[in-house]
Formats: sequence, structure tokens, C-alpha cells
Amino acid sequence: MEAQAQPEPASPEVQQRILASFDRQGLMAHLGARITHIASGRVHIVLPARTEVTQQHGYFHAGATSAIADSAGGYAAYTLFPEDSEVLTVEYKINLLAPAAGDHIEAVGTVLKPGRTLTVCRLEVFGVQSDGKRELVANGQQTLIRVNRPER
Amino acid sequence: MEAQAQPEPASPEVQQRILASFDRQGLMAHLGARITHIASGRVHIVLPARTEVTQQHGYFHAGATSAIADSAGGYAAYTLFPEDSEVLTVEYKINLLAPAAGDHIEAVGTVLKPGRTLTVCRLEVFGVQSDGKRELVANGQQTLIRVNRPER
Amino acid sequence: MEAQAQPEPASPEVQQRILASFDRQGLMAHLGARITHIASGRVHIVLPARTEVTQQHGYFHAGATSAIADSAGGYAAYTLFPEDSEVLTVEYKINLLAPAAGDHIEAVGTVLKPGRTLTVCRLEVFGVQSDGKRELVANGQQTLIRVNRPER
Amino acid sequence: MEAQAQPEPASPEVQQRILASFDRQGLMAHLGARITHIASGRVHIVLPARTEVTQQHGYFHAGATSAIADSAGGYAAYTLFPEDSEVLTVEYKINLLAPAAGDHIEAVGTVLKPGRTLTVCRLEVFGVQSDGKRELVANGQQTLIRVNRPER
Repeated sequence: MEAQAQPEPASPEVQQRILASFDRQGLMAHLGARITHIASGRVHIVLPARTEVTQQHGYFHAGATSAIADSAGGYAAYTLFPEDSEVLTVEYKINLLAPAAGDHIEAVGTVLKPGRTLTVCRLEVFGVQSDGKRELVANGQQTLIRVNRPER
Repeated sequence: MEAQAQPEPASPEVQQRILASFDRQGLMAHLGARITHIASGRVHIVLPARTEVTQQHGYFHAGATSAIADSAGGYAAYTLFPEDSEVLTVEYKINLLAPAAGDHIEAVGTVLKPGRTLTVCRLEVFGVQSDGKRELVANGQQTLIRVNRPER
Repeated sequence: MEAQAQPEPASPEVQQRILASFDRQGLMAHLGARITHIASGRVHIVLPARTEVTQQHGYFHAGATSAIADSAGGYAAYTLFPEDSEVLTVEYKINLLAPAAGDHIEAVGTVLKPGRTLTVCRLEVFGVQSDGKRELVANGQQTLIRVNRPER
Repeated sequence: MEAQAQPEPASPEVQQRILASFDRQGLMAHLGARITHIASGRVHIVLPARTEVTQQHGYFHAGATSAIADSAGGYAAYTLFPEDSEVLTVEYKINLLAPAAGDHIEAVGTVLKPGRTLTVCRLEVFGVQSDGKRELVANGQQTLIRVNRPER
């Protein structure tokens, strides 16, 4: 139900910090993913359909679905962290609920339980058709850990 | 412990079937992954390090690690399926145990419990250095479902 | 979000079927758990606090929390099954978000994705104080399988 | 494969510490579970069959299976912790692989990856017949956190 409340927008500094980190994720650029929404405790990532992200039947590969879900959850947690922190995925579990097809998929990471050390996120991925029709294609749960950024 | 027994080699037909399916996974080619071992109930997939598969700190992205783990488990199950079957991932859970670095990572999918409908696999991913040193960087568990291949 | 919609009440036949099955779960009686709500795709189970369900620090044991969460999800799925079916848990994953304390805990199982063979549920457990204050203490995700009831 | 190596026996102090903690788990006594083996990074817990731990078909309830698996993993981690620590379950995932029946079930918790803050365990539960025949009935993976014991 936390997923229902409209989260507050993230500050420009937080948005900046997250976009900069996202730009350093070589995998996201390589897949063609982009961040489309950054709120406090909530991040959306979109991945357009193309052959490079498919499994053997032409649907989005579970690995691609999971990759953007993992990043969305990680950045959702990161919006709530102090400036000198980094975020690492401890683990996640994801159910693939339906073949992921459509114009693009959209991952929504939402903080379910913030914490000083550990944060738990809900992961949702929707298949979105060209006409805007959405279907939940994957649902998961993720544990993240906050670590202090190493001094330079 | 199933992981310990040396599994029997898969038949040439099974190897052929799996390599053909793997070649249709656009994501695997796009990431640069390749199958290196196909045994009965056990499949290995290797992913070389390069910028295109990193997260923000330069390590392998959890999404890349998971993608090859998911495919390795799926094909491990597939080795045990009758010819007219397809395999779909129901869900998986993965712990990222250590930063995944090195020359390449290697995913090992092993059938833990085969079944007529559902199969459960163990997923292990190792970071491998140029000198051959290996470290377990991720460990997971996956549920797969066998479905009849649609008639054409 | 499915968790938000008020589900329809289950028919008297379904309620009857579930209460009869619940009464056959020796563990639920032994723990002191009871079903408090049966709707279509949603079941609540309550477990009162007592020494017999604690871990070493006096909180509800993760095993007790999980046990009622697992049963709540299983019966939530069962409300949607045809009469001649049985339900089995394939797997679940649960995060323990906070020490579970209070007058009682309440597990809410909600069908997230129904299916002919597999059904996926969301599992939530709340710690409830004597004054009615509620806190989410555990959150999980569960996969269930429908099987035909064996003939007698 | 870590599960294969014969772990070293735990020191008498560690064994003492764990047995004392186990005795404070009201749930374990109430279920009738007992610790049967404490090694460094490995703990076994046995639960005899009786009506009080069943689900609706007379098999061991997934909640009972999980409860002893969770405790076995928690204490396996605890064997590696410094004396002034406590252990809490962060999360776990468990697959129920086969109906759990027999004379008793035995949970084996094994540390897969120890850590200063987080420890990851493998959870295995075997159904054991009166004649000693064993079958793997559940397999899981658990994340635990070490916390400093509160001063008194």
C-alpha cells in the first residue's frame, strides 16, 4: 500500500546524484534503459523493446527485466540516503508473472521499509503497449545495504 | 550436494537444442555471454568483463550477474525436459555475496530437484581472475516451469 | 496495488471449504492461530502473543510469523480455485522488517496474480498493539500451485 | 559445495551459548524441536512428526519446516559471531520440494558466506523415515544480520 501514496518529489540535489550514478552504470546504457521518474523513495526506469534485450521467444529476457528492477529499487533506496553513502544490493527475489512484451517495460522501485543500514524495496515491472495499456509482468522484493562512500 | 556429483554429459541432440535456443536470446549475445558447458542438469555461462556490463562502481551489474545465472539455470532444467517442451522462469532469488569483478564471471546452473511441471535449480556465479582464482560472488535459487511447445 | 482494492466477499461455500481445511492444519491450532477474514483472493490470520510462539528475545519467532503468512497466502489463492482442487506452497520469500511484538500479529495474504496452475501472493504481517496501533513487521511473496484433489 | 566440507566442531563455549539461546525460543520447545548438532558454521535441528505440526493433508506444515530451517541457519551464523553479538533474520526464501513426511524432519543450516555485518546461509530440510531413508524436502537461502547485544 506504500506503493499507493504519491511520494514527494526528490530534491534537485538528490535527482542530480542519482542521474550521475545512473550514467556510470554501463549496463543501463548498453541495454538502452533510462530513468524517467525520481521521487523520494520511488524511481522508475524504462527499457524500450528491441532484439538486444530478448530471450529465446522474443519476449523481454528475465535478466533485462530484473536488471532495470534492481536498479530502480537501488535508486529508490538511494533517494533516502545521506549524501556520503553508496547503495549495494544484498539480494532480491522476483516472480516473472507474464511474458514481458510491448513497446517498452517500466520498472518501479518503491521503498517499503527504510533503515539506517538495510532498506527493503518492492519491485514492480509493467509491460506497456503502444496504446498505453499496462500489465504487471514481474513483481519482486529487494534488500539493500547502505555503505559509507570510500574517501578519495 | 547435488552440486558435487559430476553430472553426465548431455547428448548431442540436447546440446544442439540448447545452443540453438541460446542463440535466439538476443540479450545473451548483446551482453557478450556464451555457453561453455552443457551437462545433464548442469549448464555454465561465461560473461567477460567490459564497460557494457558494469554498475556505477565498475563491478559487474547485479542485473548482468542475474541474467546469466537465470539463463544457466533455465538451460540446466531444459537439459532434462522432453524434446517438445519449453522452459520458463517462474521466479528466482539471488544474493550478491561480493563485488563481482575479475576477468569474467561464470554462472553455474544446477538442477536441485527435477519435476514434471516444476524444476528447482541452484544458481552460483563466480568471479574469475586472469590467473584462474575463483570466488563465489552470487548464490541463488530458481523455480522453472515446463510448458509444451506451441504447435506451428 | 491489487492490495488496495476491497476484494469481494467469498461465497459461503468457499468460506466453509477454507475453514474446514484450516481446522485440519494441526500447526495452526497448536500455535493458537485463527482465520479472521476470508474474501475473494484475500485471507487474514491472527496469532495472539504468548511464550509458545517466541524467539530468544521474546518477539514472535520468524517461523511463527512465516507460518501464518504462508497459510494466509495459501488460503487466499484457494478462494479462487475450483472446488475439486488443492493448493500447495511452491516457495516463498519473506523479509522480517521489524521485531514482531504486540498483542497479536495479523497475516494478510493477497493474490497478486491468479493462474490456472500457478498463483502468486503478496504476504504482509502486521504487529498489532492493544490500542490497535499497527506496524508492518514482515513482507513477502509466495508462489502456489493448484493440484487436482486425489479421488477417494 | 561448502555444504560438503566437514566443518570443525564448535567450541564448548559456543555450543553453550547456542543451547542457552535455543532454550529461550518458546516456539522451538512448543513445536518439539531440538538441536542435534552444532559445528562451526553448521547447525542441525530435528522436529519429530506429530499432529501439532501438520498442514491440512497431514504432512509437515511449511511453517514448521521453515521455522526449524530459519533457526538452524540463524544459529549456524551465530557460531561464527563474537560473544557480545546477537543474530537477527533479515529474510529468507525457501522452496518446498516435496511433501514433508516421515518419522522426523531435520533442518541443516550452513553458512555460505560469513560477514562482519551480513551472513548468508543455505537452508536444507530433509524428511527422514524410521529406517533412516532421507529425502530433501525443502531448500532455501537466508540473510542474517549481526547486531551488538544491548547492554543491561
